[in-house]
Amino acid sequence: MHYLAENYTMSGLLKFSMKKTALVIIFCSLTSIYAFSQSNQLLHSAKPNIVLFLVDDMGWQDCSVPFWNQVTPFNKIYHTPNMQRLADEGMKFTNAYATPVCTPTRTSFMSGMNVTHHGISSWTSPNKNNNTDELDDQMSPAEWNLNGLSPVPGIEKTMYATTFPSLLKKDGYFTIHVGKAHWASMGTPGTDPKNLGFIVNVAGHAGGHPQSYLGEDNYGNITGKTQPQAVPDLESYFGSATFLTEALTKEALNALETPIENKQPFFLSMAHYAIHVPIMADKRFVQKYYDAGMDSTEAKYAALIEGMDKSLGDLMDYLKQKKVDQNTIIIFMSDNGGLGLVPPRRGVAQTQNLPLKAGKGSVYEGGIREPMIVKWPGVVKPKSIANQYVIAEDFFPTILEMAKVKNYKTVQTIDGKSFMPSLKNEKYSDTTRELIWHMPNKWISKDGPGINYYSAIRKGQWKMIYSMRTGKKELYNLVEDIGEQQDISNAYPQKVKQLSNILSNQLRRWNTPMPYFRATNKKVPLPDELF
Amino acid sequence: MHYLAENYTMSGLLKFSMKKTALVIIFCSLTSIYAFSQSNQLLHSAKPNIVLFLVDDMGWQDCSVPFWNQVTPFNKIYHTPNMQRLADEGMKFTNAYATPVCTPTRTSFMSGMNVTHHGISSWTSPNKNNNTDELDDQMSPAEWNLNGLSPVPGIEKTMYATTFPSLLKKDGYFTIHVGKAHWASMGTPGTDPKNLGFIVNVAGHAGGHPQSYLGEDNYGNITGKTQPQAVPDLESYFGSATFLTEALTKEALNALETPIENKQPFFLSMAHYAIHVPIMADKRFVQKYYDAGMDSTEAKYAALIEGMDKSLGDLMDYLKQKKVDQNTIIIFMSDNGGLGLVPPRRGVAQTQNLPLKAGKGSVYEGGIREPMIVKWPGVVKPKSIANQYVIAEDFFPTILEMAKVKNYKTVQTIDGKSFMPSLKNEKYSDTTRELIWHMPNKWISKDGPGINYYSAIRKGQWKMIYSMRTGKKELYNLVEDIGEQQDISNAYPQKVKQLSNILSNQLRRWNTPMPYFRATNKKVPLPDELF
Repeated sequence: MHYLAENYTMSGLLKFSMKKTALVIIFCSLTSIYAFSQSNQLLHSAKPNIVLFLVDDMGWQDCSVPFWNQVTPFNKIYHTPNMQRLADEGMKFTNAYATPVCTPTRTSFMSGMNVTHHGISSWTSPNKNNNTDELDDQMSPAEWNLNGLSPVPGIEKTMYATTFPSLLKKDGYFTIHVGKAHWASMGTPGTDPKNLGFIVNVAGHAGGHPQSYLGEDNYGNITGKTQPQAVPDLESYFGSATFLTEALTKEALNALETPIENKQPFFLSMAHYAIHVPIMADKRFVQKYYDAGMDSTEAKYAALIEGMDKSLGDLMDYLKQKKVDQNTIIIFMSDNGGLGLVPPRRGVAQTQNLPLKAGKGSVYEGGIREPMIVKWPGVVKPKSIANQYVIAEDFFPTILEMAKVKNYKTVQTIDGKSFMPSLKNEKYSDTTRELIWHMPNKWISKDGPGINYYSAIRKGQWKMIYSMRTGKKELYNLVEDIGEQQDISNAYPQKVKQLSNILSNQLRRWNTPMPYFRATNKKVPLPDELF
Repeated sequence: MHYLAENYTMSGLLKFSMKKTALVIIFCSLTSIYAFSQSNQLLHSAKPNIVLFLVDDMGWQDCSVPFWNQVTPFNKIYHTPNMQRLADEGMKFTNAYATPVCTPTRTSFMSGMNVTHHGISSWTSPNKNNNTDELDDQMSPAEWNLNGLSPVPGIEKTMYATTFPSLLKKDGYFTIHVGKAHWASMGTPGTDPKNLGFIVNVAGHAGGHPQSYLGEDNYGNITGKTQPQAVPDLESYFGSATFLTEALTKEALNALETPIENKQPFFLSMAHYAIHVPIMADKRFVQKYYDAGMDSTEAKYAALIEGMDKSLGDLMDYLKQKKVDQNTIIIFMSDNGGLGLVPPRRGVAQTQNLPLKAGKGSVYEGGIREPMIVKWPGVVKPKSIANQYVIAEDFFPTILEMAKVKNYKTVQTIDGKSFMPSLKNEKYSDTTRELIWHMPNKWISKDGPGINYYSAIRKGQWKMIYSMRTGKKELYNLVEDIGEQQDISNAYPQKVKQLSNILSNQLRRWNTPMPYFRATNKKVPLPDELF
């Protein structure tokens, strides 16, 4: 009010003395410049809000939205109308990739670094210095960064990196994290999202899955039974029938009120614990899947998916109701492939992502290909489809470009590549780019397809798989053989050699952790050392 | 940058065409008005930052700063140089009051309501609908609001109220809570400070004390041992030697970075868990108290105090370093008297607050009189001393007045009275005001002095104590007898009658919960019904 009064006085001055017009103009102009330069709100109004809606362990087929060139049986089982709504308003990415398990993907998002570079190649334990690798007769563990990501240097077994939320925050964004974090172990700074650039954190910590999805279980916080996976920050829902997915959604909408009221641009990391194990019944949705005759576990899985989808719808409705939907980008993504282990899943193991091969933990497509959708009113064409391949570390430069953050400084080299060209043109194509996966870890006690000690590389239509245990290299043509059924390495030795070289050079460049052979105590060879 | 460019263009226009001067002036003037009205930063710069530094269970004598007219033996035992520094820069309140236990005081702060009005008369259990009253042969429990404070109506056994942090937040303040909350039970919205007006919450929840002060104990978060009092949100310190007081201080300073960088006014509720039980050794400070020959428990208690005092110093240093100290008000306060129970304290029970009578839980001065200091550069005179009596509910209107929040709406009537007159004039005196305490609860299993089923009223120098169990009324002259040693009720029957009437009318006005006699199932009489 004070400043308004000052301006009214200024108007009075104008009337009083036209001789002083020039002076007044200069003063007025200067105050405008000053006010504008001070006015975050005006500057910010040009900045889009950004939501990264991240689902945990969701496979490429775990929805009713087809990401393939045909509707699959899985697309018919699951119900995700809000994903469809998002796809109708935005762009589907049919070749979007994560890493085979959660922490590496999440740290790639945050750091813009490829897994070969950040060295956080498997999931981090809640407990510091605790290697989650299973024991192996033949191999001893790689020296990976098993404590995860760190915003400060000098923390043992972590990768020190500048996170994109910290850059957004510095740029004036109100940054919110809700849900699963799993970026680092307890006892290190990276365990707390507030140390990674988030102003507000709800329920994000070192835990990689919820101890329970049920409010009736206090999400695991029960005296004598509480484990490190008990979900924090949700005491107000304790004892209620609020399913975790719903509680997190409510918390996210509550947290959004502050930036929306202050007209401050926001970044929301809406990171659901769903649909990770424990597969528990979301009573709001499960009955119809039971009624459809599904196996009870798979019915619960389908309900977890639908509950997650409702969250997306609630969020979209809220943004619209608050009249910020037209200035809000929503990025839908998952962090690895759908779980193919039986148990806890039911049915035939490693068939849960068909037509893709294998599932979570694998470098085959079932372990890494993700449902991804981007809605960006005015920029991204509704109902568009991008077939260009993209990967987790690309989110870092893309999101900063979306937010118009320029000339930012990071302590790390950014490996990701902005997918803005695709967003602006669904036909954009770059077949020269190389994507690399690397998991020198033993994720499960018994090897599975593409699971435990594998690397992989994709370039254009070609994908090569490298087994560290056996030295075997497989080659697939993904355009012709999305299911990776026909190993054509013998037919294209030059292609195998070329991809081996690229992969090996990247592993050399970052001195990427590799496992050791127990017999010799030597690191496994790089793929190009085996010709 | 866009808007700057626009203004430069405007300057170009001025040079180009002086004929259009008037039009430009108007446009320029309008843009100034618009920009100014939009510019939170400029508007905010006139608002002071406010820190409420609240210590738990700290008695009036638990420091080296004398709040009495002489230096006591306790003042010589404890070391609180930063409290002294704050007092040297601000105003000591020698007659500042809380309620006998924590939750009632904390809810009075938040709601501006007297305990007779909000009906949250004892500490709330972490667990919903769990009455913390001890069993009693003679009395059955009052129907108090045992689930605490609620920001929404319709929650059973809660008081619905508008909190002052929510009004500050609405006014553009960046509101932060760090430390003990204890405003409501789990399973109700009031358990989460984010629901009570705080944008950021660290470590505040339904718990009223820390399960452990030690990072080595993960502050209580240990699989199989975690209780509801395990301190949340501090995973990054797990396993470290960081004492809880230090961890909370670091978190507070981290959280302050956002508003300070954005030049947004802030309210920080720095609510230490210290110096509440469990009395644990803060290794940074305890040795010198051991060396001084103190009992080990009392040495730990003294170290808890000194650790709290260091936190105050760190905060003051930080504000200075960030150059916001001159625009930041610091209010130092505690929530009830020092604990006088033995065990867990050592020595003679109920002597820990001498010269005051009794301690925590009591309506005698030892249970309710608090160390209070206010620093406000430019407003409050350094080294000043206010003897005017004030009480917890006064903080609500005072803080909103400090923040220049006017014409605010609350769902409740505010009982507190701003102590701004004292802040502006240490000699300000109002002896007509009545302060009322009411604890119709059984706090401990065996009655103590002024403990279990007591009300009290102060007006001017007079204080009357009412025992609900016996109907006995005591009268003291606090100016002549701060230790409440001489019951002069027989000498001043009219004063007793007058105070009984005032107290009873207030209890009638709010239909304040009272306990029942088991024998008759009738409520205990109001004090004025016993003449």
